[in-house]
Amino acid sequence: MNALEWTGSKVRFIDQTRLPGEEIFVETDDYRVLCEAIRTLRIRGAPAIGVAAAFGAVLAVRGKQFGTAEEMKRVLDAAAAELASTRPTAVNLFRALARMQAAARPETIQDPEILLVRLQDEAMAILNEDVDACRRIGEFGAGLLSSGVTVLTHCNAGGLATAGSGTALSVITTAARQGKINRVYVDETRPLLQGARLTAWELMKEGIRVVLITDNVAGTVLRQGKVQAVIVGADRIASNGDTANKIGSYPLAVLASRHHVPFYVAAPTSTIDPATSDGEHIPIEERNGIEVTTFGGTRVAPEGVEVYAPAFDVTPSTLITAIITERGVIEAPYAPTLESLACTPAGGAST
Amino acid sequence: MNALEWTGSKVRFIDQTRLPGEEIFVETDDYRVLCEAIRTLRIRGAPAIGVAAAFGAVLAVRGKQFGTAEEMKRVLDAAAAELASTRPTAVNLFRALARMQAAARPETIQDPEILLVRLQDEAMAILNEDVDACRRIGEFGAGLLSSGVTVLTHCNAGGLATAGSGTALSVITTAARQGKINRVYVDETRPLLQGARLTAWELMKEGIRVVLITDNVAGTVLRQGKVQAVIVGADRIASNGDTANKIGSYPLAVLASRHHVPFYVAAPTSTIDPATSDGEHIPIEERNGIEVTTFGGTRVAPEGVEVYAPAFDVTPSTLITAIITERGVIEAPYAPTLESLACTPAGGAST
Repeated sequence: MNALEWTGSKVRFIDQTRLPGEEIFVETDDYRVLCEAIRTLRIRGAPAIGVAAAFGAVLAVRGKQFGTAEEMKRVLDAAAAELASTRPTAVNLFRALARMQAAARPETIQDPEILLVRLQDEAMAILNEDVDACRRIGEFGAGLLSSGVTVLTHCNAGGLATAGSGTALSVITTAARQGKINRVYVDETRPLLQGARLTAWELMKEGIRVVLITDNVAGTVLRQGKVQAVIVGADRIASNGDTANKIGSYPLAVLASRHHVPFYVAAPTSTIDPATSDGEHIPIEERNGIEVTTFGGTRVAPEGVEVYAPAFDVTPSTLITAIITERGVIEAPYAPTLESLACTPAGGAST
Repeated sequence: MNALEWTGSKVRFIDQTRLPGEEIFVETDDYRVLCEAIRTLRIRGAPAIGVAAAFGAVLAVRGKQFGTAEEMKRVLDAAAAELASTRPTAVNLFRALARMQAAARPETIQDPEILLVRLQDEAMAILNEDVDACRRIGEFGAGLLSSGVTVLTHCNAGGLATAGSGTALSVITTAARQGKINRVYVDETRPLLQGARLTAWELMKEGIRVVLITDNVAGTVLRQGKVQAVIVGADRIASNGDTANKIGSYPLAVLASRHHVPFYVAAPTSTIDPATSDGEHIPIEERNGIEVTTFGGTRVAPEGVEVYAPAFDVTPSTLITAIITERGVIEAPYAPTLESLACTPAGGAST
């Protein structure tokens, strides 16, 4: 099952808000449907958002008549701005759009039809690179795990979050195929329960033993010595290694450190943002409080209560044992290696 | 509003599982209804469980004819065993039952009617002591807070968890009346959301500014320097100061320590268990996984997923800045003071 793919004329994706109850696929040739899908987390996960945005840029200009390449580029740029405004934290979104905009160069390609082919090729390259990165992250990461380990993961950094086999979950499924994984503790990941809904579902499909816990239980299993590695994904990695990931990752890193359990971040190099010097400068999205105060239409908190709902937190690089990328495993000091790996500068908030 | 009271012939309590949506009061003269209410968390909170169990013991023998005091005592002992089996962690339950059983001494009181009066007096004493303890905990605790503080609390250690004004929340409401509280961050407290459902509701009724957060956000607000004190309740305090409290308290204590924010435990001395040497020996209840995998009838995790759902965790005394009791504020070294305060030995699991 591919969570996100290109049919040749449309983007086909699974609606992640309906899982695990229903497996609903959506096909669209309208980039605005993709904007809405990213905003409402029907499509989520930093790498998947990047791939979706790339094809969103294609869809914005596909099937339309343009007199000139410049005209097409103007429409592309406007759509890119719209796509960039959907979510602020995952840098893959801005990097993918920057690549699409760089690929569309009317000064070298003057025929709109050829320019469209160029854009489709670039989006497909972003998708294929992601698939390949997931596979390689899995291999590099599995190499870090010894036989019989129990690992803990947070949120969903799986096939659903990428165009491929995932980041943190690619490490786990690759290690599982090597017979190394005893079991996986899965944080449910409030408020949107991506762990309970998505990660548990993905790992169970792979036949891996899952133990679901509330986020509050992670401290207990770490303290009990039940976990030998924590592996999470990333939404943006600053050039010093500070990493924004799903809210709750930072407390997990603090607890892992306290209990001398390695804390690994698994992410493609497209998640590295050399333009952001450290975690303090990563923009953190705040979600609507209704995601906390209601559940499945049931209100769980008093009417009118104030809510603070950041979607991400920042784990300082000092708490990260290693960053697993498709180009190898990086350890501290992070800055020199991250800067050399992040060859393409990201658009960031200025896109 | 009293969450739990004695009408003279019945126990009247608010069904906490229905809050904040509905304020349903239940009146019962059947101790088995109280057993069920404790088991299903309609009545919850360590001190409230103790008071409910004491009146449960009264109801077990009230309105029945006994030939001898010994006969009444046998019925009382059987009911006490049933009441003791409802939940394993909160020591107040075992202490209250031990007090009731010690008060019923057929060798000194031979008339069953007089023995019943003695039992009612003892239960009422347990209730009144709890009310008084809550008030005094509030006063001692408020003395620790400076003006303009923002505090963070977890789960519900409020009026709903006691027969009085609460433990941690008594500190907060007392300090608020002194004009000291800026705002209160309330952890929603998965899986049963006692923070979102109960604490937010109690504090908003008091006109205190509440900011509701998922448990995952506590690390962020502590790191941002927004919180000057963390205050929680307790279900059992071992004689070395290690404290069992709602799952998620331990991670919170680790984070508070990392960010140099004091972590206070507020609890009556009835929560101290001198028979338990340290946290390792506190029995931790495991709840049914269905409390994690479903919400309001909606399934949020795949069918058949394994769940690990301990209801409590243990915070080592080294992470506790002070324990606020009705007899004063205790700081490390805890053992000598806790041992002298816990004058009545608890029944513990052997009851």
